[in-house]
Amino acid sequence: MTAPLRVAVAGLGTVGAETVRLIAARHDMLALRCGRDVTVTAVSARDRARDRGLDLAAIAWFDDPVAMARDAEADIVVELIGGSNGVALDICTAAIAAGRHVVTANKALIAIRGAALGTAAEAAGVTLAYESAVAGGIPIIKALREGLAANQITHVHGILNGTCNYILTTMRETGRDFDDVLRDAQELGYAESDPSFDVDGVDTAHKLAILTSVAFGCAIDFDAVHIEGIRNIAASDIEYATELGYRIKLLGIAEKTDAGVSQRVHPVMVPIDAPIAAVEGVVNGVVAQGDYVGTTMFEGPGAGGGPTASAVVADIIDIARGRTVPTFGVPVAAQTQMRVLPMADRTGLYFVRVIVHDRPGVFADIAMALRDCDISIESAIQRGRAEGGAVPVVLTTHRTKEAAMRDALDRIAALDSVVEPPHMIRIETF
Amino acid sequence: MTAPLRVAVAGLGTVGAETVRLIAARHDMLALRCGRDVTVTAVSARDRARDRGLDLAAIAWFDDPVAMARDAEADIVVELIGGSNGVALDICTAAIAAGRHVVTANKALIAIRGAALGTAAEAAGVTLAYESAVAGGIPIIKALREGLAANQITHVHGILNGTCNYILTTMRETGRDFDDVLRDAQELGYAESDPSFDVDGVDTAHKLAILTSVAFGCAIDFDAVHIEGIRNIAASDIEYATELGYRIKLLGIAEKTDAGVSQRVHPVMVPIDAPIAAVEGVVNGVVAQGDYVGTTMFEGPGAGGGPTASAVVADIIDIARGRTVPTFGVPVAAQTQMRVLPMADRTGLYFVRVIVHDRPGVFADIAMALRDCDISIESAIQRGRAEGGAVPVVLTTHRTKEAAMRDALDRIAALDSVVEPPHMIRIETF
Repeated sequence: MTAPLRVAVAGLGTVGAETVRLIAARHDMLALRCGRDVTVTAVSARDRARDRGLDLAAIAWFDDPVAMARDAEADIVVELIGGSNGVALDICTAAIAAGRHVVTANKALIAIRGAALGTAAEAAGVTLAYESAVAGGIPIIKALREGLAANQITHVHGILNGTCNYILTTMRETGRDFDDVLRDAQELGYAESDPSFDVDGVDTAHKLAILTSVAFGCAIDFDAVHIEGIRNIAASDIEYATELGYRIKLLGIAEKTDAGVSQRVHPVMVPIDAPIAAVEGVVNGVVAQGDYVGTTMFEGPGAGGGPTASAVVADIIDIARGRTVPTFGVPVAAQTQMRVLPMADRTGLYFVRVIVHDRPGVFADIAMALRDCDISIESAIQRGRAEGGAVPVVLTTHRTKEAAMRDALDRIAALDSVVEPPHMIRIETF
Repeated sequence: MTAPLRVAVAGLGTVGAETVRLIAARHDMLALRCGRDVTVTAVSARDRARDRGLDLAAIAWFDDPVAMARDAEADIVVELIGGSNGVALDICTAAIAAGRHVVTANKALIAIRGAALGTAAEAAGVTLAYESAVAGGIPIIKALREGLAANQITHVHGILNGTCNYILTTMRETGRDFDDVLRDAQELGYAESDPSFDVDGVDTAHKLAILTSVAFGCAIDFDAVHIEGIRNIAASDIEYATELGYRIKLLGIAEKTDAGVSQRVHPVMVPIDAPIAAVEGVVNGVVAQGDYVGTTMFEGPGAGGGPTASAVVADIIDIARGRTVPTFGVPVAAQTQMRVLPMADRTGLYFVRVIVHDRPGVFADIAMALRDCDISIESAIQRGRAEGGAVPVVLTTHRTKEAAMRDALDRIAALDSVVEPPHMIRIETF
């Protein structure tokens, strides 16, 4: 049997503690699967005194995680601190420089520093693994990078943030408003006290940027992701969606055509019978289309200590067995540079909700604004009357270009009879 | 760069031809992903003259696939002939004996000969890979054996046969009978002219036996699988299922408890909102529950040239990169022997349909038969009247043991007023 694999863990929050616990609890099973013992030899966290329910007596303690990454007796450094800069980056850089493998659950770090870290890891002949950074317990990086490696992937979309999906699901089930449901989610621990990373789509965008690179073989480009969150989704949008046969989901969508690559994160209306529509609550789901395999879907818990530790240890097992794969499926130097397709080129259906003064001719004004931008109306709902007051007008369009849609929305917003600027949600019928 | 990886392909049907085509069409991408060239150096099939749209000029031809497995200049032999005996077994045995890796899409072979072949492969230091044998294009073996390798998996269930799922889906959508829909499926090429392998559940059982071994770390035991097919599902069963809030699916189910392991293939009523219920048509889906990860689901095309070739080439890429894993996740010698739980121990809900003479007291007779076996009725439907004629009585039970249910079914069958023996379908609410 080969020498034991020594693991150093930086960060002992929920995921870190669960990872240390798993490795201890599953010692014999891991030895069978890895062909060698796996053992945690060092840890680092802020507060040494805190009771985490772990026996750390035989494990070296480091107050400084960067010193641990540099000096610990370890083959792998697991980074579970987070952030795209500062200590997380320093830990990974130091570990690679010291010839150690890196396992991280840090999506911001990979999305923003992945190219540099991947290059450094390849030069040093070590692995940079990040299965747990995308979609938690779902082995989606392995699926795309190995399981579907024979395919040209042309399309990936997914529900990549459980907080947003929980909020949207609960809004639909209860009819309540965003702010109200967010507050509950915070109390339940599903949302952070500062929720912007989740609800404004940034977390989803980090994960999408990683998926895009792995799926399409192109260099990671987080700055090219178009990002919108879910703060503007009203309870009434969700009601209308249901009435029209759709569910509203915050999706990350990456598409590759001969013209280039698009990456976008925004709320989407998807048909109720689309597989991704059935992914509800805190669950994540990813759909990938490959030219040989067709459409595949992967679903499971996107966050939490257990699922994330499951993915972290899967990466450790791969390293223990010497199973290697280039960081993003192909060597960093062989990645293509993506030609970024601008959001204005997106072509598809649109849902528009606009609050107007209830007076004759308003609908005609809106219809003419759309006609002037060459957009055809597919369906329209004008319900309830409040003569002299404000009422919603809701419509869906036939296929049109985003640029035309934006033009039309500007024109509609400028109409005298419009009370609130129009709210638009894209419809996707993958 | 390492020397090219040489591949010999036995069997040039749909999957074999697509595999050869993929490897040629994706030469450059495969080289990047593998770190070396991959090239088909030998093929064998029955009819050399047949036009498969392939350029075989530079590839060695063998009339005898076993001779090819033994003598070809190849690092990998891909077996795509099928069957658990005869030439398929001989090819794999010869290839391993000659120190070559084996990739196969042959579920019957792995389910029945997997232990022996796996032992031989481990002794020879070669890989026996079979991703394409289960659920076609879905990388489910990789997901269970590597992606979820940190977990104790306690439950797996899946739709593993696209033919059956197509038939059941179409029966529901059209209200037509089994025989009728089967005939259509045969004309469309979704079912074989001898459909028994599919519709009697044997194909599903082969795949389940493999999943059980990989998921639970126990020796494969195909003979321990309880198998029932879908021939007895009537159009009316599907109507009743819909009315009661269920879909009928042919599932393979493996469960592991402290008492032992159960493996069973039979039609199941699953709640309409269960994720597996949404897997419709020829698509396959697999749900796995692990102690750290929770519940994950994998969905995609379960058969066909493209999806199967996708999985075959994924195995080839793993071998090309030297990524190895014990055949069934842990070495064959370290597998546990499963304690087989008898089907009579299954505990759960049941649906029962029985055709009776429409006369007073019949329902009371049935209710008493159930009471005498300690089974409580959860709901009952007795609809339509045909005084003196035959009418269906449909009921669902509360949780009970399979042994008690069988006893009750025997008693009901023996009642004077019963026209046809009762038909039972198990309900699962995973």
